[in-house]
Amino acid sequence: MADTAQAGYSWVTFLSDYGLDDVFVGVCKGVMAQRAPHLRILDICHLIEPQDVHQGAAVFASAVAYLPRAVHLAMVDPLSAETVRGVAVSTGDGSVLVGPDNGVLSLAWEALGGARTARAVTNAELWLPRHTGTFRGRDVFSPVVAHVANGRSLDELGPVLDPAELVRIRVRPPSVDDDHVHGEVVNVDHFGNLSLNVVRSDLEAAGMTLGDTVELRCSGRTKAVPFRLTHGEVPPGRLALCEDSFRAVMIAANLGSATAALCVGRGDPVVISRMAQRPLRPRASDRTGD
Amino acid sequence: MADTAQAGYSWVTFLSDYGLDDVFVGVCKGVMAQRAPHLRILDICHLIEPQDVHQGAAVFASAVAYLPRAVHLAMVDPLSAETVRGVAVSTGDGSVLVGPDNGVLSLAWEALGGARTARAVTNAELWLPRHTGTFRGRDVFSPVVAHVANGRSLDELGPVLDPAELVRIRVRPPSVDDDHVHGEVVNVDHFGNLSLNVVRSDLEAAGMTLGDTVELRCSGRTKAVPFRLTHGEVPPGRLALCEDSFRAVMIAANLGSATAALCVGRGDPVVISRMAQRPLRPRASDRTGD
Amino acid sequence: MADTAQAGYSWVTFLSDYGLDDVFVGVCKGVMAQRAPHLRILDICHLIEPQDVHQGAAVFASAVAYLPRAVHLAMVDPLSAETVRGVAVSTGDGSVLVGPDNGVLSLAWEALGGARTARAVTNAELWLPRHTGTFRGRDVFSPVVAHVANGRSLDELGPVLDPAELVRIRVRPPSVDDDHVHGEVVNVDHFGNLSLNVVRSDLEAAGMTLGDTVELRCSGRTKAVPFRLTHGEVPPGRLALCEDSFRAVMIAANLGSATAALCVGRGDPVVISRMAQRPLRPRASDRTGD
Repeated sequence: MADTAQAGYSWVTFLSDYGLDDVFVGVCKGVMAQRAPHLRILDICHLIEPQDVHQGAAVFASAVAYLPRAVHLAMVDPLSAETVRGVAVSTGDGSVLVGPDNGVLSLAWEALGGARTARAVTNAELWLPRHTGTFRGRDVFSPVVAHVANGRSLDELGPVLDPAELVRIRVRPPSVDDDHVHGEVVNVDHFGNLSLNVVRSDLEAAGMTLGDTVELRCSGRTKAVPFRLTHGEVPPGRLALCEDSFRAVMIAANLGSATAALCVGRGDPVVISRMAQRPLRPRASDRTGD
Repeated sequence: MADTAQAGYSWVTFLSDYGLDDVFVGVCKGVMAQRAPHLRILDICHLIEPQDVHQGAAVFASAVAYLPRAVHLAMVDPLSAETVRGVAVSTGDGSVLVGPDNGVLSLAWEALGGARTARAVTNAELWLPRHTGTFRGRDVFSPVVAHVANGRSLDELGPVLDPAELVRIRVRPPSVDDDHVHGEVVNVDHFGNLSLNVVRSDLEAAGMTLGDTVELRCSGRTKAVPFRLTHGEVPPGRLALCEDSFRAVMIAANLGSATAALCVGRGDPVVISRMAQRPLRPRASDRTGD
Repeated sequence: MADTAQAGYSWVTFLSDYGLDDVFVGVCKGVMAQRAPHLRILDICHLIEPQDVHQGAAVFASAVAYLPRAVHLAMVDPLSAETVRGVAVSTGDGSVLVGPDNGVLSLAWEALGGARTARAVTNAELWLPRHTGTFRGRDVFSPVVAHVANGRSLDELGPVLDPAELVRIRVRPPSVDDDHVHGEVVNVDHFGNLSLNVVRSDLEAAGMTLGDTVELRCSGRTKAVPFRLTHGEVPPGRLALCEDSFRAVMIAANLGSATAALCVGRGDPVVISRMAQRPLRPRASDRTGD
């Protein structure tokens, strides 16, 4: 990792669950700016659900390919009985991911082609002199980020780790059946669009293709919804199934909010089924006349 | 436009309806930073009401005179059946406005002295290789902004357009009568102040001058309210009519919220009438004793 | 102050009650960027409760030690019958605090070792040509901040003031008794943690030490709560008393929200009492058998 670090970094990117109503984000940036005044800091998002490591990991991974080569800091760090170690992970694109080893970084390094090397963040000489257990973003990780951005050696952070030992988040896959897909809502965006843990090829594997009208079941209701390229293709206020801008299947309303229309939120199950709109492939059950 | 572009830009300003709870703003900035690492990005506001082009246009125009010479990006981009073209518009102050041609830029270029030249944003070679229809801020406009900020020629963006052909937003004017003004609330700010589509000269044309007490009618109620320079001149908790900091007439409460006190919000009608507090100019109706 | 100013500043930090739903923050930054294009602007927080000078002062002071040497701008500026003067205050660390002389700066300069010199901000030649009474952050303070950041002399801002004459905020101290502490909630953070106007030595003075279980009385309820180093030491969902990351005593729930669990918010009283869990020091009342 030494070679990468020698070069230093102009950019730090920063994701957290710190919110915007406190000084948490500001003082982390302040600690970085005190130590690396040349830094440019790019906020990814600070409104991850408090202490939701899974959401943080997924959101971080969705963004990271669109970010410059940088030190990427992800702080979703719930307290627990035993302190989760901090880690710095170098990736194939020359970036360094920094954060707690609770999985929040794991989907991002996969999106960047895998973890190349890793170090534990244990060298307290680099941290703030008075560090608390409750705000490691400020006391531990921000000074470490500044250290790395200044081009100093990653060797100083702490001992080498085997990337295979790092904690990983598992994303629950959808269940894809002969004529339907059983998924769940993994994100509700600012516009009320519902992104699912389903990709287009899952729908195709269940016999649904672009242009079809499909059956949507969620929160106790059933709706026929067109599967289109974008929700701009349906009339205002109507729902569509389409791909979101990160290539996940989403339910969206043209000029409206799908989450409000369907009373469905993050974590809720959604079943998408093929409708008998075009010649069905013969199934065993069809032959018995069911 | 070539001359302007050759110089390049240090600053990008960015307004959108993307909200702060997603990575939308962060990844747009990331795409710019990947391509123009020297950039400084100044956020104007990202909490425009989702897909509200009129509000976006008005808010953008109110801010733009206070911004540095820059590439100004405004993304309020509702999907529609046919894709709205993107445009880049150069203005007299040497800035370039970038966004969809749905009117969101139109009040801003008027505030900057008019559109000087315009180009359609059609050259997909400048865009992200995999561009989606649903997130043009990231896939189309952010790389174009970086291109312009890097000082490369605007000629490459796409064909020349006649600025007169660009879509324009019309702001609904108030109705100014002999002794009253019929307006509407065009903005509710963070403090609950209600800005109207009315300026001071409208009130003066209806016979009301600074220092008067005027009659306010809204949401079924009538209130006598002093017309003052600022709402600091009335007792705490009381309402005043005054000018906001962008020279629109506003209803404000000293140390309080006018929107809460009056139950009035954006789009609601407000009638401001002269009261018989000083010699009235004779009107036809006065003569008949009404 | 001239020597400090000559050097100029790369960083401006910015705290306000302007919120994020308007262009207020953006246009202040724009005015600075127009005049000092080299500036890096670090947002501390813009969600101070509207016009709450006390909260602004406390939050600003909690952050300022973690910020780089900078021009620090704090805008919580309620209108009043007579205009509050603006001030620029230099501190021992070489920073300059800028804002209204209503106390919002006063806890911050104490945190930075005291006000060294002060100037009234009265020279309107440095302000925007058209300045309104209602948005001094944009019209008065932002151009003054840019002026100072550009390394120009503080002498030009206005007349010298005696720092002893500046308005100061008083923080209400807790009442510490023989076996209990009577305090109040001074901050509710993004995670629902309740910070008190109480420090650990107050608890110790009332006979409570780390490891004890103490009695908490608030909003009409009484609860036994462990006093621990962090709330990570109690089971998920349970409350703990501990130190927050700024060294104040706080009530926090592990993986939960204390404000929601206790229905307690900012300004509410909290009584923390010693429990008879270990040998009590003899008190007068004990001897009479009460």
